[in-house]
Amino acid sequence: MTAMSTMASEYELLTPETVASYIATNPTLAELVDASTLEVAEVGDGNLNLVFLCQDADGRGICLKQALPYVRLVGESWPLTPQRVLAESRSLSVAAAVVPHLVPAYYGTDEDRYVLAMENLFGWEIWRSKLNRGEIHRGVGALLGEYVANLAFSTSLFALDQMEVKQQTAQAINPELCRITEELVFTEPYIEHDNNSFVDELAPEVAALRSDACLRSEVGLLKHRFMTAAEALIHGDLHTGSVMVRSTTDGRGDARVIDPEFCYYGPVGFDLGALIGNYLLARGRAAVLYRGAEYCEWVAGLAEETWNAFEANMRRLWPTRVDQTWTDGFLDAWLQQVARDALGFGGCKAIRRIIGLAKVSDIETLPPDEHLRAATMVLRTANTWIKERQQLGGVSAANEVFLEVEAAVMQND
Amino acid sequence: MTAMSTMASEYELLTPETVASYIATNPTLAELVDASTLEVAEVGDGNLNLVFLCQDADGRGICLKQALPYVRLVGESWPLTPQRVLAESRSLSVAAAVVPHLVPAYYGTDEDRYVLAMENLFGWEIWRSKLNRGEIHRGVGALLGEYVANLAFSTSLFALDQMEVKQQTAQAINPELCRITEELVFTEPYIEHDNNSFVDELAPEVAALRSDACLRSEVGLLKHRFMTAAEALIHGDLHTGSVMVRSTTDGRGDARVIDPEFCYYGPVGFDLGALIGNYLLARGRAAVLYRGAEYCEWVAGLAEETWNAFEANMRRLWPTRVDQTWTDGFLDAWLQQVARDALGFGGCKAIRRIIGLAKVSDIETLPPDEHLRAATMVLRTANTWIKERQQLGGVSAANEVFLEVEAAVMQND
Repeated sequence: MTAMSTMASEYELLTPETVASYIATNPTLAELVDASTLEVAEVGDGNLNLVFLCQDADGRGICLKQALPYVRLVGESWPLTPQRVLAESRSLSVAAAVVPHLVPAYYGTDEDRYVLAMENLFGWEIWRSKLNRGEIHRGVGALLGEYVANLAFSTSLFALDQMEVKQQTAQAINPELCRITEELVFTEPYIEHDNNSFVDELAPEVAALRSDACLRSEVGLLKHRFMTAAEALIHGDLHTGSVMVRSTTDGRGDARVIDPEFCYYGPVGFDLGALIGNYLLARGRAAVLYRGAEYCEWVAGLAEETWNAFEANMRRLWPTRVDQTWTDGFLDAWLQQVARDALGFGGCKAIRRIIGLAKVSDIETLPPDEHLRAATMVLRTANTWIKERQQLGGVSAANEVFLEVEAAVMQND
Repeated sequence: MTAMSTMASEYELLTPETVASYIATNPTLAELVDASTLEVAEVGDGNLNLVFLCQDADGRGICLKQALPYVRLVGESWPLTPQRVLAESRSLSVAAAVVPHLVPAYYGTDEDRYVLAMENLFGWEIWRSKLNRGEIHRGVGALLGEYVANLAFSTSLFALDQMEVKQQTAQAINPELCRITEELVFTEPYIEHDNNSFVDELAPEVAALRSDACLRSEVGLLKHRFMTAAEALIHGDLHTGSVMVRSTTDGRGDARVIDPEFCYYGPVGFDLGALIGNYLLARGRAAVLYRGAEYCEWVAGLAEETWNAFEANMRRLWPTRVDQTWTDGFLDAWLQQVARDALGFGGCKAIRRIIGLAKVSDIETLPPDEHLRAATMVLRTANTWIKERQQLGGVSAANEVFLEVEAAVMQND
């Protein structure tokens, strides 16, 4: 990873102690909460930002997110432009217009200190944590398919004049953030690299991936597509840790998508792939921890739930498209391509979480035997998804791949 | 076609009478020719520009190209940004660095009056005119494959850091010129539109294309790819009228590529497709005018000659790539994708020349019976290329499609 950021200007980082006065001096924010009675907690567990959850004595809240000028996980040796907060505000603004019920309310951005203000999601929790505990939130998968479809449609050539799309594409380039994905997702797991780590028992599986020329060239094609296919303003990092959920009174789940700072004009299948790849990680955990439970069956259906909602929303929006060159037949063909992209990207996103930098708690918190079994299932399933995505065609066939791999892994133990 | 250009500033158009004084006041140009003895001819037969060929008494030359603020073919009702001269200078500068032997020397651009100065190619002629006369120029097809490969490689992720590619992609957007291709190549021929025209006898062929849902969705996919696949800085309009040729002393042909004002970051297969589609038009003419002649056989081999040179040059440059994620297996897979793109784009480029705005002399100058036969061959071949490009896979199979169509058309008459 080469350091590309220029740290041209220093800026003051917020602390829990300075947040209240910061809010008090900002007229827009000062109206949302009473700064004089504010309680502030720094909760940033991500790699790139400070996050302050604030609540006043009346229970009103606000969340401030300040971009750090480096990658927290690695430290100050890996500088990263704080301008990414502008990417996040770009995505949040679009989402506020087309899927306001699926994102936190957006209050504005301080471009001098790289601070973004949004709704404090009291009582919501990161979805990955809930999945790890085996909690069922019916409907969340569908909400995320709706999120991807609406963002994709409304920022693409389907909804906008081509001139507008090209200008937006140029303005939304996000090369420093994209580089992280390019290296961590598509390159490092497949070579020897200091950022990689895995338990010794996985070494044969990892060696098999790395020596698989077909897998390597398919991963190359997917990386190339990630870097060149400017289809729509995608989220860019839509894993289960970028989704907040809570239970609704009818026993279902509600969802808010957060952290779109990796957004850029890219392939729509990448967002779906991020979800499907992370469902695979959850499913690997479920297979070894919650076998036979209702939870297990529900997790197994998430990929189809998300895909079906994505497709249904695309078809619902389709009659409003601005260019009739995009025929109904084109939509069918394009959806097929997106589905294949999603399987390929999903496989890459799952593999990097097992081998590369930035692991996930789904797998990392498992006891040793279960860890090995779940990780093996994920790697083998992902490998097949990537290499056979053209023939598999869609998520139901992808589900069958997991079932076969699962049966083989559980039998061997 | 919506008028998108803002005619913010008026600028003075050159005339044959004012060119000498224009050159005399420009120090760089004044060194290249003696403005006091200059003979000037306006030769612009294109749609978008004034072109002045200048020669002084010592035989030294210069060519000035001034962008018009509208599309000449249609008139002032179709405004078009003269900024496109900057796109042309962008492409010429890159080509001067990587394929100086395949482009005119570039002398600079006047950004206030949208005038670009380059080598006056004395004694060279537009390739299409020579093809129309049945002249053979061996080796030209290979030079164009070399041109495409070198431009593609050197401006892509294969040769440049990803940060550089993304910035270049953003800077090189060329939406007004791309719009012309999008509408004239991918949209208008397939619908009723005032820009279209064709002889009555072709009406059933045209109706068949338009009612072919499979063809329409494939053309949609190709249009979408043209609009979203930012692979490399492509020429964007590489037909046989954008190539100047002359005979060399060894009886072969030399080539210079001109008119890259449509350049932008797009799919590499589009440039190859433009060539292959125009070879198809030449071949349709050859089949009805030069049947059995050596010329006919030579034209039949052009597509493979260009493709083979493209592939050979990509493979020659491949070891210099900057990112080892692009494995040898990836190159094979990527080349396969480019070949399929080339067939699809080639089909679209050929069809638009039969049905849409801006016809070509290859077909237009044929007598009525020959015109109909050649046009029919082109339309049917192109249709199959577009729909079956995945299965055909490459240019040799595409050649066979033409032979089958040709046999059927000649038999029926």
